[in-house]
Amino acid sequence: MEAARRLEDLDGREYGPEQLGPAVPTPGRVLCLGLNYREHAIEGGRNVPTWPESFLRGPATVIGPYADLVRPALTQRFDYEGELGVVIGQGGRYIPAEKALAAVAGYVVLNDASARDWQRAGTQWTGGKNFDGTLPMGPELVTTEEVDVSDLELTTRVNGEVMQSARTSQMIVSVPATIEFFSSFTRLCPGDVLATGTPGGVGFARQPPVWLEPGDVVEVSVESVGTIRNRVVAEDGNGREWRWNPLATATGSL
Amino acid sequence: MEAARRLEDLDGREYGPEQLGPAVPTPGRVLCLGLNYREHAIEGGRNVPTWPESFLRGPATVIGPYADLVRPALTQRFDYEGELGVVIGQGGRYIPAEKALAAVAGYVVLNDASARDWQRAGTQWTGGKNFDGTLPMGPELVTTEEVDVSDLELTTRVNGEVMQSARTSQMIVSVPATIEFFSSFTRLCPGDVLATGTPGGVGFARQPPVWLEPGDVVEVSVESVGTIRNRVVAEDGNGREWRWNPLATATGSL
Repeated sequence: MEAARRLEDLDGREYGPEQLGPAVPTPGRVLCLGLNYREHAIEGGRNVPTWPESFLRGPATVIGPYADLVRPALTQRFDYEGELGVVIGQGGRYIPAEKALAAVAGYVVLNDASARDWQRAGTQWTGGKNFDGTLPMGPELVTTEEVDVSDLELTTRVNGEVMQSARTSQMIVSVPATIEFFSSFTRLCPGDVLATGTPGGVGFARQPPVWLEPGDVVEVSVESVGTIRNRVVAEDGNGREWRWNPLATATGSL
Repeated sequence: MEAARRLEDLDGREYGPEQLGPAVPTPGRVLCLGLNYREHAIEGGRNVPTWPESFLRGPATVIGPYADLVRPALTQRFDYEGELGVVIGQGGRYIPAEKALAAVAGYVVLNDASARDWQRAGTQWTGGKNFDGTLPMGPELVTTEEVDVSDLELTTRVNGEVMQSARTSQMIVSVPATIEFFSSFTRLCPGDVLATGTPGGVGFARQPPVWLEPGDVVEVSVESVGTIRNRVVAEDGNGREWRWNPLATATGSL
């Protein structure tokens, strides 16, 4: 959990934490809950869900805990979302909540970074949640023996300023119930990652809104799990003159 | 394209079409468009999109072109969606529509079978589109040299009766524009599958609604690409007494 320590490879080569990859480099899927904290649902002008809101992220979204977070060239509304992540260790379908923690290999910290203009251009959030390289994960896998995640502090800072501060006990759907829910429709597999949703305090809901800019540093901490820290960088100029611009076209027609 | 022909393995063993697996057994992702035909958007009470509606299916949803289609025990509203599928052969990011067909390995026929109660319990369609084994694919990969998909007939039959009949020229977002759209946010990879949306005539919009029941046979044909044919079977009794029942809980609170 000490982000600053030096690590040693089996061949004796030393490397620093900035070289760490994600805890699960290529998960089969990242199964995500949205609006799983009441304050976040309300700040976004949404109803508090009466059914879990879920979406998928593909494996190409995953990056390391200290990697550069590339702000996509095609978004003007790039936002952070600090979250607790759950890594599946033992697969299964129809896993009841009472037994669900036995399916967990461990926990990670996530930043479910989101392109809000893409997320809100239609009704489905897929595009805004699936820009490549927008899901920092880590810093390491903390096992269920090491931590009880039912009531941990979660904090997101941007350039050192606290933007999100909540406790995992405030989740609407708990970690065990989340496992039960996703396993209702798909057999969970070792290496699948579940994202448990973000609390209030995201950038788009602030007055004025806070959008991530190149040079910003986003840190997400979950008590006893660790801290991830990613510097926002600009994407190379690719795609600036591009048909798919949600701010320009979302009010028109296809 | 002759579904009835016998095939021969390299070791000389004969097998029948009923043993065929999906054209892409484990795609990295299935990137799907929704509401991509005007009649289907309208029949569902939705607005015709002004921005592409998209969702992901995980690889566990894929089954073969003649495999049994298991109706999930947890849905009471299981529906068909005949679609043209596009298999990526050459990857890339920011693929302009003008060059997009060069990224295509070939085409398949899909049945984007959907649990409507799950799809409509919240705002996000993820659960209703991600029951394991609900995306029949095939019958084989038809290459871009063999077929021009810009204006082909698409037909879905249930027990021999035509339920959907449309032409791919009626898509709101064309195949090249769909590739351009998805490659805006993620680098497409060989083996990725794109689902291009279903036309009007699905079961839930009929009066009275038509829900798939065990014993039903669903056939989807795309002219010059082929026909997939799947018999609906019941899932084993698993999970009948289960917390997550969208018809019971969607009007309550979590």
